[in-house]
Amino acid sequence: MSETLTADQAPKLSPEERAARLEKRRQQLIDGFNAIPFIVHVGGKLVYIGEDEARAEISMAPHLVGNTFQQILHGGVIATLLDSVAGVVSMAAAYGRLKGQATEEKMRRMAQLGTIDMRIDYLRPGRGERFIATAKVVRIGSKICATQMTLHNEKDALIATGNAVFHY
Amino acid sequence: MSETLTADQAPKLSPEERAARLEKRRQQLIDGFNAIPFIVHVGGKLVYIGEDEARAEISMAPHLVGNTFQQILHGGVIATLLDSVAGVVSMAAAYGRLKGQATEEKMRRMAQLGTIDMRIDYLRPGRGERFIATAKVVRIGSKICATQMTLHNEKDALIATGNAVFHY
Amino acid sequence: MSETLTADQAPKLSPEERAARLEKRRQQLIDGFNAIPFIVHVGGKLVYIGEDEARAEISMAPHLVGNTFQQILHGGVIATLLDSVAGVVSMAAAYGRLKGQATEEKMRRMAQLGTIDMRIDYLRPGRGERFIATAKVVRIGSKICATQMTLHNEKDALIATGNAVFHY
Amino acid sequence: MSETLTADQAPKLSPEERAARLEKRRQQLIDGFNAIPFIVHVGGKLVYIGEDEARAEISMAPHLVGNTFQQILHGGVIATLLDSVAGVVSMAAAYGRLKGQATEEKMRRMAQLGTIDMRIDYLRPGRGERFIATAKVVRIGSKICATQMTLHNEKDALIATGNAVFHY
Repeated sequence: MSETLTADQAPKLSPEERAARLEKRRQQLIDGFNAIPFIVHVGGKLVYIGEDEARAEISMAPHLVGNTFQQILHGGVIATLLDSVAGVVSMAAAYGRLKGQATEEKMRRMAQLGTIDMRIDYLRPGRGERFIATAKVVRIGSKICATQMTLHNEKDALIATGNAVFHY
Repeated sequence: MSETLTADQAPKLSPEERAARLEKRRQQLIDGFNAIPFIVHVGGKLVYIGEDEARAEISMAPHLVGNTFQQILHGGVIATLLDSVAGVVSMAAAYGRLKGQATEEKMRRMAQLGTIDMRIDYLRPGRGERFIATAKVVRIGSKICATQMTLHNEKDALIATGNAVFHY
Repeated sequence: MSETLTADQAPKLSPEERAARLEKRRQQLIDGFNAIPFIVHVGGKLVYIGEDEARAEISMAPHLVGNTFQQILHGGVIATLLDSVAGVVSMAAAYGRLKGQATEEKMRRMAQLGTIDMRIDYLRPGRGERFIATAKVVRIGSKICATQMTLHNEKDALIATGNAVFHY
Repeated sequence: MSETLTADQAPKLSPEERAARLEKRRQQLIDGFNAIPFIVHVGGKLVYIGEDEARAEISMAPHLVGNTFQQILHGGVIATLLDSVAGVVSMAAAYGRLKGQATEEKMRRMAQLGTIDMRIDYLRPGRGERFIATAKVVRIGSKICATQMTLHNEKDALIATGNAVFHY
């Protein structure tokens, strides 16, 4: 289990209490992600968040199509998922990096987290029934977090890769 | 008016007929763009298409929000608009570049047009009532089209820039 | 006089003295750039530095070739020039943004300036006798500077564009 | 024997002869890389080339420095190595993809191979004695090759990552 996602280490917390607090934080990140209006509108869902990796999923649906002849995902859906899942894992990594700082300072820093830039390579047509977006932290600095992302379909075909950098 | 967007130059077409055909092609690109399912779902609209520039617009709406505290556009909305408007101007440029080729060959090439990769720089929070996405062709080659994009709000603040490359 | 008083706040400076000081700063940036070991090795030269634009030049030479059949610039030469010229204009912009802060704080911040990421679009073969790299500041924030670059040859053909982001 | 028959189709080649021919091709790629004028000027060396992975190395040297205070690699050195090693592995992948086509057609296609665009993420200062650039093919299409790169130092610290796309 991640040590760096722990709450401020108040001496009175037992290991069980700490684990519970960590689990609560993760659930907050999941709930927060799944309540983002545009994510709800598109239909994405965060399914896993760890210290340096996160996964979101989306099922194919008529409103996600970019090319009606080919019935493939719009590139904007891919960009939306990859940006969002990279953002949430950056938040988890930033939280870990700020370990030892006051909770309100952590919250302030995480609230101002934003994407600096993103690159997406569209490798194959977005064909499939279900798509899995995965983001990993490549480096967490004191102000900047670098991430890499992939999008696979349910048959594990690699559809797109991404790189995004966040400030916090 | 663009010469390179003209139809195959069948000798029987008068200048008026040619202009009418060109106008028809542009309207087809506009109609095609505005019927893309994900564009409809998001709420974007192509408002101008020329030979090497295109513009699309979107109005702020609750479902486009990425950060509920700040009430700003989700980065995925920006990516969706920039990718789409760059794609349609690449189509117009590819059509011009294929001048003199058979119509069905042109159609075949344009149908296979796709984004190779895209970069977006998020410069300012996506705050505003209306957003204007502009794409320009930087270079149209025999197989590849390079584009640059911007997103401004209704007060002309530059919110994001983009670079995308398309194959056709 | 307090050490934390900047040049701008120093009451004794006349407009002439201030202009002279600014000119000295610019010359320092030019001298610093032109003394970078790898820039010397490659043969580049900074020819202009303003507050939000800079230009560097390089002359074609046998050691810069990437493709001996085509006798064109290696992509790494282009990347080297674009990264460097964007870096120096970011330094100028950061300096301006830090106006009012103590000189030593400015120096500390500028010394830690570094490239976060860079994208280059190679639009045309690097053919020519002389190449001009231009960088402009798109946005200077409190911690990050976004830039755009171009590389032209002496006939004003656009050979490459670039985007780079710097932290400071 | 017809000039358009490829090595693979030539009925007279034994497995040993084929392996020898493949080894010869690899040695040609290595020799070609190590003779690129700018690579020689910088001091890089290709040390391995497989079908979908290549590695090049460079030793730290005074002329490669970008920041004299910190004695770290110039970002342009990193870009040069990553671009070049990704280019040579794209050449190997393109050669494999063109299997069955005439040798002269393969040569023609490989001679026109060029970088479309490249992104580099600078994760850590380029500190070390020796640097290893690795490129992998992410996808080889009929006209385009997508690659990912890394730069490590001799202690295996990840200094930079890259993404580049090539046309051929």
